[in-house]
Amino acid sequence: MRNVRFLVAYDGSAFFGWQRQDGFDSVQQRLEEGLHALTGVHVTVQGAGRTDTGVHGLGQVAHAHVDTRLDDDALLRAWNAHLPRTVVLRRLETCAEDFHARFSAVSKRYLYLTVTTRFPPPFGAAHCHWTPSRLDFARMRGAAGALLGRHDFESFSSSGSPRTSTVRNVQRIHFLLRKDRFAFVIQADGFLYNMVRAIVGTLLDVGRGRLDPSVVAAALQGAPRATLGPTAPPGGLYLHSVQYEPEVLLERGQRGTRRGETGP
Amino acid sequence: MRNVRFLVAYDGSAFFGWQRQDGFDSVQQRLEEGLHALTGVHVTVQGAGRTDTGVHGLGQVAHAHVDTRLDDDALLRAWNAHLPRTVVLRRLETCAEDFHARFSAVSKRYLYLTVTTRFPPPFGAAHCHWTPSRLDFARMRGAAGALLGRHDFESFSSSGSPRTSTVRNVQRIHFLLRKDRFAFVIQADGFLYNMVRAIVGTLLDVGRGRLDPSVVAAALQGAPRATLGPTAPPGGLYLHSVQYEPEVLLERGQRGTRRGETGP
Repeated sequence: MRNVRFLVAYDGSAFFGWQRQDGFDSVQQRLEEGLHALTGVHVTVQGAGRTDTGVHGLGQVAHAHVDTRLDDDALLRAWNAHLPRTVVLRRLETCAEDFHARFSAVSKRYLYLTVTTRFPPPFGAAHCHWTPSRLDFARMRGAAGALLGRHDFESFSSSGSPRTSTVRNVQRIHFLLRKDRFAFVIQADGFLYNMVRAIVGTLLDVGRGRLDPSVVAAALQGAPRATLGPTAPPGGLYLHSVQYEPEVLLERGQRGTRRGETGP
Repeated sequence: MRNVRFLVAYDGSAFFGWQRQDGFDSVQQRLEEGLHALTGVHVTVQGAGRTDTGVHGLGQVAHAHVDTRLDDDALLRAWNAHLPRTVVLRRLETCAEDFHARFSAVSKRYLYLTVTTRFPPPFGAAHCHWTPSRLDFARMRGAAGALLGRHDFESFSSSGSPRTSTVRNVQRIHFLLRKDRFAFVIQADGFLYNMVRAIVGTLLDVGRGRLDPSVVAAALQGAPRATLGPTAPPGGLYLHSVQYEPEVLLERGQRGTRRGETGP
């Protein structure tokens, strides 16, 4: 039995999100079924983040305790052979016993892709958001700047599951502009339910001139959800990557073995 | 009645190619049906190039003689509203009566997209070619250089419809490299059936070390099709753009109206 960490990319348009739910097809379930087919044992796959229905993964990280004689590379190949073509393991490695994809993570980065052509793109309708609006990127950048740092993001979340705190630390924000499309990249120590999509929906309305850039800062001071833009649709959202401390990423045997000596 | 020229993008994975064929869904048919729904008249849409089953269009050019009171912009919007979401008109303009999308074209540019990740991509399986092979791009570039200029490309074509000449002039070749993908771009005054896919299949085998770079030059000197690589699959191929003389692109009324005074 060993703990393996792996990098997963998936096309979320085919799934009801990452997390296993009875009666709905999920990425987690497909990964667990593939592993079950390989090893005969059911184990739980733990992901770093739970992406919603229609949201995609580029660099989701997950771990699982597996019982197999296959070495890492053989396990990677065999497991991939037991997955649908919309779910791909890109890397796999044996990691420390106490590595936990979710609790060991220090931050996550999401990317939101918007296409701004006049007419909808013929390719990848489920893989981007499309708007024919002319967007004022300088205005959007100005509004987005207020998000950086430690704030209460409650107004940017959909009411849903209870949580202990709605304070998150946004470490990085980045706009990647191409001719007729742009990606909004945001990295934080954690995200509330629908937070990225609420931010993007708001920034788009700021870019269109429908909302004043000051609404972002005001919402972080407690102005209600209704002062912001709509939740942008899921197809444009990608879990880009998950960040860990370098020490946590050392492989088994490369660091001290006493528990408590290391860890997040 | 006026002649309109338009730019079409389409997802070829949904169609049995560009050209209308009884009993098979084609891009041309969908365009003609949309126009028929709008105007009540059946007219033929003429494209610059006939892409095969599964081949995509980014900048296909076509023309049609339409009878409508809609101005160009209204026609563009209305026609788009009568097309499947995998076919999009990006531009439309009234052009000279004698503009012919195919015969007026001086060259066409194709792009072939190959993804070189170790495992197949979860996104867009029908929109790229995937190979896990390590490719030697210097070697591929060296082989591709021989294609430039005026040559007999018969060995790079699939036997098929009769044609008067198999000589084509390749004007431009370009490799666009990204981390784990590359696009091969080729512009010529014309292309034989399956020519780009035969070239790409051959260059990939050169890149893998399975074929010597000299096979390309030898095939242009008459070495048979069997000395080359396989025909690369259609999903990676895009009709990128069509080139015309600037004079031909002037709109109606901007140049002399007597026939024969202008034209290709």
